[in-house]
Amino acid sequence: MNFPKIGITLGDPGGIGPEVTLKALASKKTLPDANYIIFGSRSLIDEQIETLGLHLKIPSLGTENSNFSISLHEVKHPIKNLKKGCPSKENGEASFFFFKKAFITARKEEINAIVTAPISKKSWSSAGIKWAGHTDYISNFYHQAIMSFWSEKLKVALFTHHIPLKKVFQKINSKDLLDFFLNLYKNIKNLSRKNYQFLVAGLNPHAGENGILGLEEEREIIPAIEKAKKEGMPIIGPFPPDVVFRKGIGKPDKIIIALYHDQALIPFKLTAFNLGVNVTLGLPFVRTSPDHGTAFDIAGRGEANPQSMAEAIKLAYTFCVVP
Amino acid sequence: MNFPKIGITLGDPGGIGPEVTLKALASKKTLPDANYIIFGSRSLIDEQIETLGLHLKIPSLGTENSNFSISLHEVKHPIKNLKKGCPSKENGEASFFFFKKAFITARKEEINAIVTAPISKKSWSSAGIKWAGHTDYISNFYHQAIMSFWSEKLKVALFTHHIPLKKVFQKINSKDLLDFFLNLYKNIKNLSRKNYQFLVAGLNPHAGENGILGLEEEREIIPAIEKAKKEGMPIIGPFPPDVVFRKGIGKPDKIIIALYHDQALIPFKLTAFNLGVNVTLGLPFVRTSPDHGTAFDIAGRGEANPQSMAEAIKLAYTFCVVP
Repeated sequence: MNFPKIGITLGDPGGIGPEVTLKALASKKTLPDANYIIFGSRSLIDEQIETLGLHLKIPSLGTENSNFSISLHEVKHPIKNLKKGCPSKENGEASFFFFKKAFITARKEEINAIVTAPISKKSWSSAGIKWAGHTDYISNFYHQAIMSFWSEKLKVALFTHHIPLKKVFQKINSKDLLDFFLNLYKNIKNLSRKNYQFLVAGLNPHAGENGILGLEEEREIIPAIEKAKKEGMPIIGPFPPDVVFRKGIGKPDKIIIALYHDQALIPFKLTAFNLGVNVTLGLPFVRTSPDHGTAFDIAGRGEANPQSMAEAIKLAYTFCVVP
Repeated sequence: MNFPKIGITLGDPGGIGPEVTLKALASKKTLPDANYIIFGSRSLIDEQIETLGLHLKIPSLGTENSNFSISLHEVKHPIKNLKKGCPSKENGEASFFFFKKAFITARKEEINAIVTAPISKKSWSSAGIKWAGHTDYISNFYHQAIMSFWSEKLKVALFTHHIPLKKVFQKINSKDLLDFFLNLYKNIKNLSRKNYQFLVAGLNPHAGENGILGLEEEREIIPAIEKAKKEGMPIIGPFPPDVVFRKGIGKPDKIIIALYHDQALIPFKLTAFNLGVNVTLGLPFVRTSPDHGTAFDIAGRGEANPQSMAEAIKLAYTFCVVP
């Protein structure tokens, strides 16, 4: 058996990404056997290991020959003025290059998965990087990439994500919804042999209450669900958004389909605590990340909780080895 | 001491309203001393008491002379074809008349509070009643009425509520936000001597992330918060919507301000379970209701849980007797 090769990108150097990555890797005993390959800069990880007082030696790539290894795929991008706790152009460039290198390596099938520590959209924007985040960048290459969130309590897939709330309703049309449903179904079937049921959230209060509180349910969402059913997909809804999550909590065989970012993330973060994982579906490789951001407010203090990062690494492993 | 007079309306006859009302009143021992006055029809409560096998005698209004009493303020509206489990014109008319009578009685200061069992917007609409619900009707008379939800875990006030999601952003302007903040603050101070802190949710993903994911935070929400602070209101934000509720859960001195229906109701219903109460602030009397709907799918089966209704009655009592 080949052990999976799991790439890990450090995220924004000014945020908690490097800290949670190295803390998660330092708790080796809890991680499954794999070759873990960090995409980042030597100076950054050395500084972080010293600051945190971690017992971790990370050789350069090419030395891994055992079941379990941690190595560094150095992405040359020396950071001259590292400032913890705020976004910057330099941080944006560094985190983008770390990620881009891992992404290219995964596309070449040299690694099986990428786990990405959080980047700052502000840093990326300062560096002139036009994408709103990892998933946005990935979607550029894989148009059918799907953002989803997984925890023991709840699984939720997002029809739209990093767009202003006022633009959400413009995206709700039955053709795109149907494409999304079927694409999600196909990808979930590829990922796991379990039989999942899909529950769709409505867009409007009370799922429109028969058209009184909005028309998207009757005009767009219900027709798309009916068509997906005809294609054999086990999908039901739309349910009132404030009801559907109660139906999915603690039910391992149910996946909720949310129509916008906070419809998914408010209940997900409330119930997952520090154990939530962001999973991008629809790619030829696995991609996971913790469900938190750069947390600039606590960066550099050594207080960051690596649990979500550790869960992201473990879930990436699980998806790599699923038959 | 005068014991409070608490009016209770039966809600849609085809839903679970009559059932949860009578079940809650039947558990007399758990209710505080007050005069409870049902607004509904004799035939409806008699039928329901018999079906449920409740030990409850409800005399007509005018007989209450003890600390604790339950009586009926009959609102003549005989229902000829009562069908459980679905909305109808007749149900819409009945539930509207029950509520309207209680509302008028409260405005005349003949009762101190109204607790409303759930109505169906579809039934109201079939009966030609143009309001989207109780709060919408009340707002017609009290323009500054505020919808809020209370549980032991979380308190949340809503800036907008029963409107389609696509219309929410049109309502976000700093003048109306400021008016809402200060009105909420005034009403909460009238209601309780506790010192509350108010946490405002953003509108967009990540609260707009410095304008990258939406501009309402910078242009409208932040200016309104700053002005409210200058008026002495303890208010902070805007926070990312998927973060703010974690800050408010289990913190009895914090009230979250949500900008739209499901932003408030998804986390509220997830955490309150069956103990959530809808409270209308900004009225000269108290108004509460359970946080669930008519639940047509289980109406008539005797399975409805009266806990939220019981909590609504108890919270109405608490607000009536607060000094």
